Amino acid sequence: MDIADLRKTHPDHWNKAAAIRALTLDAVKEANSGHSGMPMGMADVATVLYEKHLKFDAKNPTWPDRDRFILSAGHGSMLIYSLLYLTGDAEITLDQIRNFRQWGAKTAGHPENFLVTAIETTTGPLGQGIANAVGFALAEEVLRARWGKKIVDHHTYVIAGDGCLMEGVSQEAIALAGRQKLSKLIVMWDNNGITIDGKVALSDITDQQARFKASGWSVFECDGHDPEDIDRAITAAKAADTPSMIDCRTHIALGSSAQDTSKGHGALTDDQLIADAKEAYGWPYGPFEVPGDVKSQWEAIGSRGAEARADWQQRFEKLSASKQGEFERMMSGDTPKRLASTIKALKKQMSETAPKVATRKSSEMVLEVINPIMPETFGGSADLTGSNNTLTGDLGVHDIDNRAGRYLYYGIREHGMSSAMNGMALHGGVRPYGGTFMTFADYARPAMRLSALMRQPVTYVMTHDSIGLGEDGPTHQPVEHLAMLRATPNMNVFRPADTIETAEAWELALTSKSTPAVMALSRQGLPTVRKEHKTKNLTAQGAYVLADAEGKRMAILMATGSEVSVALEAREMLHAEGIGTRVVSMPCWELFAQQDESYRKRVLPAGPVRVAVEAGVRFGWDQWLSGERGRANKSAFVGMEGFGASAPAETLFEKFGITAEAVADSVKALLS
Amino acid sequence: MDIADLRKTHPDHWNKAAAIRALTLDAVKEANSGHSGMPMGMADVATVLYEKHLKFDAKNPTWPDRDRFILSAGHGSMLIYSLLYLTGDAEITLDQIRNFRQWGAKTAGHPENFLVTAIETTTGPLGQGIANAVGFALAEEVLRARWGKKIVDHHTYVIAGDGCLMEGVSQEAIALAGRQKLSKLIVMWDNNGITIDGKVALSDITDQQARFKASGWSVFECDGHDPEDIDRAITAAKAADTPSMIDCRTHIALGSSAQDTSKGHGALTDDQLIADAKEAYGWPYGPFEVPGDVKSQWEAIGSRGAEARADWQQRFEKLSASKQGEFERMMSGDTPKRLASTIKALKKQMSETAPKVATRKSSEMVLEVINPIMPETFGGSADLTGSNNTLTGDLGVHDIDNRAGRYLYYGIREHGMSSAMNGMALHGGVRPYGGTFMTFADYARPAMRLSALMRQPVTYVMTHDSIGLGEDGPTHQPVEHLAMLRATPNMNVFRPADTIETAEAWELALTSKSTPAVMALSRQGLPTVRKEHKTKNLTAQGAYVLADAEGKRMAILMATGSEVSVALEAREMLHAEGIGTRVVSMPCWELFAQQDESYRKRVLPAGPVRVAVEAGVRFGWDQWLSGERGRANKSAFVGMEGFGASAPAETLFEKFGITAEAVADSVKALLS
Repeated sequence: MDIADLRKTHPDHWNKAAAIRALTLDAVKEANSGHSGMPMGMADVATVLYEKHLKFDAKNPTWPDRDRFILSAGHGSMLIYSLLYLTGDAEITLDQIRNFRQWGAKTAGHPENFLVTAIETTTGPLGQGIANAVGFALAEEVLRARWGKKIVDHHTYVIAGDGCLMEGVSQEAIALAGRQKLSKLIVMWDNNGITIDGKVALSDITDQQARFKASGWSVFECDGHDPEDIDRAITAAKAADTPSMIDCRTHIALGSSAQDTSKGHGALTDDQLIADAKEAYGWPYGPFEVPGDVKSQWEAIGSRGAEARADWQQRFEKLSASKQGEFERMMSGDTPKRLASTIKALKKQMSETAPKVATRKSSEMVLEVINPIMPETFGGSADLTGSNNTLTGDLGVHDIDNRAGRYLYYGIREHGMSSAMNGMALHGGVRPYGGTFMTFADYARPAMRLSALMRQPVTYVMTHDSIGLGEDGPTHQPVEHLAMLRATPNMNVFRPADTIETAEAWELALTSKSTPAVMALSRQGLPTVRKEHKTKNLTAQGAYVLADAEGKRMAILMATGSEVSVALEAREMLHAEGIGTRVVSMPCWELFAQQDESYRKRVLPAGPVRVAVEAGVRFGWDQWLSGERGRANKSAFVGMEGFGASAPAETLFEKFGITAEAVADSVKALLS
Repeated sequence: MDIADLRKTHPDHWNKAAAIRALTLDAVKEANSGHSGMPMGMADVATVLYEKHLKFDAKNPTWPDRDRFILSAGHGSMLIYSLLYLTGDAEITLDQIRNFRQWGAKTAGHPENFLVTAIETTTGPLGQGIANAVGFALAEEVLRARWGKKIVDHHTYVIAGDGCLMEGVSQEAIALAGRQKLSKLIVMWDNNGITIDGKVALSDITDQQARFKASGWSVFECDGHDPEDIDRAITAAKAADTPSMIDCRTHIALGSSAQDTSKGHGALTDDQLIADAKEAYGWPYGPFEVPGDVKSQWEAIGSRGAEARADWQQRFEKLSASKQGEFERMMSGDTPKRLASTIKALKKQMSETAPKVATRKSSEMVLEVINPIMPETFGGSADLTGSNNTLTGDLGVHDIDNRAGRYLYYGIREHGMSSAMNGMALHGGVRPYGGTFMTFADYARPAMRLSALMRQPVTYVMTHDSIGLGEDGPTHQPVEHLAMLRATPNMNVFRPADTIETAEAWELALTSKSTPAVMALSRQGLPTVRKEHKTKNLTAQGAYVLADAEGKRMAILMATGSEVSVALEAREMLHAEGIGTRVVSMPCWELFAQQDESYRKRVLPAGPVRVAVEAGVRFGWDQWLSGERGRANKSAFVGMEGFGASAPAETLFEKFGITAEAVADSVKALLS
């Protein structure tokens, strides 16, 4: 690749790409931090993609049928900010570019979906973007099957770096996409041979083309600085009937003295280096200056899709009013009106029949009534369908020959599943839920955190939520996972006690627009504790008085999930000894913390001793044991002190001392 | 594969393998849970491996130069328990087999390294075993380079299932092993085409042979039920100069009516099915009965390696006494005597020079003095060497042509790195540490939990431990990670305040034999807070009085890491206003919790108001804010309430209100 040659043969292309490179150098210099080399290396590919292929309308970044562009290598954020500014995005102004990485700016260090409308997904943790993209492409398939090509027909383009491809989640994503033949997914690999520590070869010799082919992808390659070659490769990828990977041979930090070095990966702030690079680009303009003709050409690209969008709008308006409404409802994430009455009816029935079932089974009973009335739900499991109880009768299995199917066999890929669910939620029109054992929240953790950060209402169905799973032993028994999940901002962790609380939790998860939900569900059967029907969703308050003290209130028992019935049993024992005991069910700490102080005080008044019981570690419980504002309460915790063990569940509860007797004894010790 | 044919042509082999199958059926039936199909499918491969290849001496399971056998598909635990019982392992008796999955038995649902000496690693969470194995093989390489082939020269064999290969961590492991040409690593893939949800093809079409080849592995295949073919494949794999994968075509639940079905994956407990399967095996014996001749043949296999072990012992004893002592010291995990004095000397120097450096830099300063005196350390980073400050001058980079090198460029593979470190620690002779950004503890999480469960002293160097990293923004800023790690049993989470606490933390991490350590280290420079030299390791107490109140003690400030200096500054402000304030540095909660109650009360006496300051979420802090046994303390927390943001670090501390002023104001509000 000879820059001088390219400047001569493709002056228009060159200048458009140079604008990206120059803005990147200027913004990183101004911020004195960031990553210059990636945008400088991928500017040509991005320019060709935007100019020739990407279906978008810069003034309408929420157009539902736009192509999705995902910068999986999120550290190269100046690439996407430059593209947005140049094409005329309303939010990313030149001021925003100047304020790159500053407090309050939309141009954060890594692209954040919640700061910029046109940014499809937050990226930065490597490998997430390419795995999100699988979800975007899946959502497109399922919506196209439902609405037809006239309404839904778009591509998902990804720029991924070496880091994305080294992260294990990329393998899960690649294998999923290959299996599902997601032909509208096109990954452009920024093959620059450089990572932070040095050359890629220091740590990797993988033949990436062969790796992708092994999972059923079509593979193309191009000189990542030759616009015709890039165009040819993208055109070919679009024609493939499988997902495509384009191996783009690029030079990181192109045209600078840091080209092809790991130095070029980071922040290039040396004045001379910047001046020399701009000289090489033939870019005599001042910092943040883009000449009018180049800006105009970019703005023309930005409005290139306006006509297609208008055509789409016309087609959309030919749908019946009810269909339009339904499409808009699903894209907006609103729930159907019937949801509330459906949940209420189920609750009523359950309070009457009072079944003794595992809450994973309860969850299935809820899904059996929800899925038929919410066509936007999309379920799945990481190879534990029969254990997670996630597949209901009406969904149909999503597959190459059944794109309308709403259930995916994700395989043993908790991380890939979770990242794909983020992608589906971000795409819109689909409300994903997926199951695994709760202990494997560990595998899904990077994606779960991003659900919370990105404010996406993904539902994690996590069964086998304690030592109650029994014989599989400590690797499979979560003890610290409730704490881990509760510590995460913006995540509602539900641990329902019975079918009724499970139904309430699902209602809350499904009506959320900006908070992911975890359903911590038991393997073992649990009695119905809510035998009196209430139309009100009590779980919405996070915690509530399930059974109050008879006589003088001397103790409060707090419990969640499978231990609520343990607390109720302890209450009976204590009442038999004349110790008035209240039981508070706490299915969702986060929602309880959001109630006003007076409600919290009514539920947990000062005075009585407090005992919490949960088959997990104590970590975090002191928040509720110690009382509001440090008021004194004698308190104790009955739960786990370390890892579990392999034995039948009943034995484990007995051996680890999580029993009604232990709870009652604990209360009596505090009172004595 | 025709069973009748195999029984006829290879009666001895057949019966040995049938013993595994029958014991599996009996144990799972007795436990009424477990996984029958995998041992039934892989019995032939395991039999040939043990009979013809595995270098081991059943009576000496800790022989340092034994081959390592890792059952990555840990749910098939009856395979390894059967092999141990049959070959004459002292711990796995027939009684243990009968008590499979029961309380107190060594035969847990999944194999646990801490229950059975001969079990090299805990497996069950899929993909971990194959990733551990990379660490075992790396440890073997580095030790062979140091001690020579006469002392260290063994293979690492892995049985991995489809689930292991679907998990992303397997890709990280495969790529690492391929890059490092770990030719003594041999993976036997149980290619049975079945997962829990059904056929593998439901969720995967990956050509695994091509995938492994793409990362530089040699690939072989065999009929997994034909002993000659298996032998041929293993022999060929041993001769390869790269890591090898053997594609073993097997039938899950071989010979039963559940063969080749997902039902066969689980617990086969139907009496008729069991009777029919035993009939097909030609196995007329009662439950748990192994005829004497078959047991004798297996025991002969178990003692096959006794001579090789005795030869090894002779070679070992030819080493000088000091070399023998050093080898045994390193294998046992004892630290060299010089460690204590080296740490003390560094502490003294640091308290005198009182540098203002980031604790990630402090950590490097410590490693610079430790690595030269501890040849067993093995460092690395997941592509953040220059940021994690993990590479010291003397280590040398581990590579194909420098097997003595003690530093590995792991690539962008936090999970693979962490699993490999577990493998190294389990192998013995190597004490691994590895770096990444603390927020990417998320990626490493499944392996970190296993370090804790398996009681392995792996050290996680986690830099950029708060919003103090600045512009990279919320994806890179841990806020809930301290809580997540502290909630995990048996994990020491150190967050040192300066170079001296960092040195103390490293001393504790390096002298631990059964608890992993996390070093939460700052990106930003921190002043030295321990200006008075103390030879005693104060961090060993977990928390201690760093600066006491002048005059009446009215407030206690608790802080960790970068916020300790914030607390000290607040103390100055409060003293200026006559408010006597104690500052408690709490570098390790876990160690503080292990102190006796009287020490904890001396450090945190009842009475004064308490304010904790930490640039993370409050979750978990109420344990210390609420006081021992619920004694009343007015208290407050200064920290994060949600995710961070992208801006310079100083701006973020200011905007999120984590400042000395905010701490002082908080104390005054509590006192007013």
